[in-house]
Amino acid sequence: MYSKTLFSMCMKKAHIISIGNELLIGDTINTNAAHIGQRLTHLGITTEQIFTIPDDFSIIKKRISRSLEQADVTIVTGGLGPTHDDITKKVVAEIFDSKMVSNELVLNHIKKIFSDRGYTLSPSNIEQAQVPEVCTVLFNKQGTAPGMWFEKLGHYLAVLPGVPYEMKHLMETGVEPKLLSIYKGLNIRVTDYLKTAGIPESTLSDLIGNLDEYTNNGVGVAYLPNPGGVTMRLSAEGATKEMAEQKLVKLRKMVFDKSGDFIFARQKDKTLAEVVGSLLTEKNLTIATAESCTGGMLSNEITDVPGSSGYLLGGIVAYANSAKSQLLGIDEKLIEEFGAVSKPVALAMAKNAAKKFGADIGVSTTGIAGPGGGSDDKPVGTVWIGFFINGENFALKTVFTNNRLVNKQRTVMVALETLRRYLLGIKTYPYELKPHYS
Amino acid sequence: MYSKTLFSMCMKKAHIISIGNELLIGDTINTNAAHIGQRLTHLGITTEQIFTIPDDFSIIKKRISRSLEQADVTIVTGGLGPTHDDITKKVVAEIFDSKMVSNELVLNHIKKIFSDRGYTLSPSNIEQAQVPEVCTVLFNKQGTAPGMWFEKLGHYLAVLPGVPYEMKHLMETGVEPKLLSIYKGLNIRVTDYLKTAGIPESTLSDLIGNLDEYTNNGVGVAYLPNPGGVTMRLSAEGATKEMAEQKLVKLRKMVFDKSGDFIFARQKDKTLAEVVGSLLTEKNLTIATAESCTGGMLSNEITDVPGSSGYLLGGIVAYANSAKSQLLGIDEKLIEEFGAVSKPVALAMAKNAAKKFGADIGVSTTGIAGPGGGSDDKPVGTVWIGFFINGENFALKTVFTNNRLVNKQRTVMVALETLRRYLLGIKTYPYELKPHYS
Repeated sequence: MYSKTLFSMCMKKAHIISIGNELLIGDTINTNAAHIGQRLTHLGITTEQIFTIPDDFSIIKKRISRSLEQADVTIVTGGLGPTHDDITKKVVAEIFDSKMVSNELVLNHIKKIFSDRGYTLSPSNIEQAQVPEVCTVLFNKQGTAPGMWFEKLGHYLAVLPGVPYEMKHLMETGVEPKLLSIYKGLNIRVTDYLKTAGIPESTLSDLIGNLDEYTNNGVGVAYLPNPGGVTMRLSAEGATKEMAEQKLVKLRKMVFDKSGDFIFARQKDKTLAEVVGSLLTEKNLTIATAESCTGGMLSNEITDVPGSSGYLLGGIVAYANSAKSQLLGIDEKLIEEFGAVSKPVALAMAKNAAKKFGADIGVSTTGIAGPGGGSDDKPVGTVWIGFFINGENFALKTVFTNNRLVNKQRTVMVALETLRRYLLGIKTYPYELKPHYS
Repeated sequence: MYSKTLFSMCMKKAHIISIGNELLIGDTINTNAAHIGQRLTHLGITTEQIFTIPDDFSIIKKRISRSLEQADVTIVTGGLGPTHDDITKKVVAEIFDSKMVSNELVLNHIKKIFSDRGYTLSPSNIEQAQVPEVCTVLFNKQGTAPGMWFEKLGHYLAVLPGVPYEMKHLMETGVEPKLLSIYKGLNIRVTDYLKTAGIPESTLSDLIGNLDEYTNNGVGVAYLPNPGGVTMRLSAEGATKEMAEQKLVKLRKMVFDKSGDFIFARQKDKTLAEVVGSLLTEKNLTIATAESCTGGMLSNEITDVPGSSGYLLGGIVAYANSAKSQLLGIDEKLIEEFGAVSKPVALAMAKNAAKKFGADIGVSTTGIAGPGGGSDDKPVGTVWIGFFINGENFALKTVFTNNRLVNKQRTVMVALETLRRYLLGIKTYPYELKPHYS
């Protein structure tokens, strides 16, 4: 898909090289590569591979040398700090057969940082101002390690520090402007993130069907499953942002026509709780929760949204049965007869939550989160989710996994997605569940 | 450092291959590689490189084929889902020149998952039970995509799904036991993760001082700051686990002597809520929460722990002032006079939570999470955390950041860490806060 498009002739390829033992032993998660990949994508440059390699002179040398030949653009991060395992600079000096020189601008900057903070300047700090003579310095206002820019027969190499905010600063002020001016004629890529909830990836892809007729001509689609639901990424490229946007229109319309009811957001960072919050605000409705198996996760997600105090009145985490009866006023006989994980208890919890807090809407969760507590009749993962809206009292039953945290997450997702659909008048329920009434 | 140790002759090298366009364009951060790197490190296997590559048949084939020659162990993740861009399985079938067969165990498992949840089985789901005939299936209890294990002339290859919890499950139950039995004679690396809470990194490192005399001889230490606190990683290697352990003893004793009160756990995955839960269980105490600014996050973290129903009776999320007075019985005049974010309200919330639920301990949070709602007197980030334990009623006041989610997280951390120290009889408070009494 990457190497076979019609654009392969003019497509520019990038390699990202992340250096650091801490990345290989898993102490640090490689967030830098994701950021750089995102920035390059927007510039229309395709990141073909990311290499994560150790603080080892010969491995670094081999990798950078190869990428300089194989890729149009190579971005290296890490190995530029003042400690002795930071050797990237020596490697590139050797690759370019260039002597090291002290950069006065950088040296003065380092001296100023240290005197401002009242620290003593060490020899290893002074050494940070040394750079290979052939490079262009990318001035690092945010730290002591300078970025470096190299060119070799139409191939470009940027060497950046590994500290995330310093790397981001140098991408923005150094690397991106250079790439933009070098690759002026390059296509710009635009992206839509369509977030869905309450539909499995396979059902969604069956629903949308074959996309081949839409995905030629530099237009692409991908399904990204994650615990909160499946996100569809639609992307297109064009000579200008407007031209790229136009190409997306047909695809987006088709995707919305087929699956619009399941799409809750068009922005990557938007949460279901935010969407439900906006709907509650718009309709001037208040809400209260009664949680058993989710233990506060539902109200926690609702209150992650700024301004949620405008519609969430509160919630009760009724973990013990005594709490269900005493604080939520659930009839003890109901719990005895049907069990705490049952339709009648879920219905009563939702209704009583609304009444206790004086809210328009009540939502309840009661289930067996696991890993213990299951039975043949009610296996681990069995969950009832109750609703009280507009005087209507119904509950959904589902059986999730045997993973406690996944069960909590999915329960919250189904609760919020059911609310979203209800508030929008969509007549289906997440995962094709059916409502049970009393 | 990696290729030049004394152990290089018998060192086993691993490659990790992460497949997915979403990783290259930066849609998804590669957390899987970090987890796998960590697990391999524990087994004494050195992760030499991590390759992140696109969903492209020929690139995947070339990369896996090369790693099968260059590395002793290759772990591949991604590209095993039911949608058509998931092609890893076809690639490995071709590499091993093996036909695809349906695995009955996996097929029945997939059918059961779908029937339990009441979903319709799609053709693409049935296809997930197909595996190359030469592989050993790593049974995936947590999902529908099976893991696969291959062997070729003393080189090993594991192919795992990209969904993080499924990948972790298959590493633990499939890959790690296999590698342990194959590489019996390998140097084992042992690691201690000493997790602290309520102490800044700089204070902690000043407290512990210079470590040079301890960190020779294959023994290492690192400070890893993260939102929940600072973790210290201590590591050592030896021919057996016992020999490696012995090397750690001196270092660990010194670190504990100097900072033991701040260390809440010795395992990386252990949470503060788990530790507090164990202490409550041990002392046969029950707890209830009354949350305002944390909105359920405290009870959510407590209930992430299996068995928490043994000590958490429940909680009230009293977000609106009316909820504070009606459900928690806080005197409305108290709120009027001092404001909802105040010592008297925090004290009363904690006490009343304990009483309402009949719990031994009550914990409350009330604060201005932000981004709005601050004043000169009570800026965003101002939080009162109340406690009612053994008849003692006290509250801590702190001012955190202007980031809503960070404020919620830190409030929960301070609440739990205060409980931990109290239950252990440690006479200090997180961040050297002072208790306020009524």
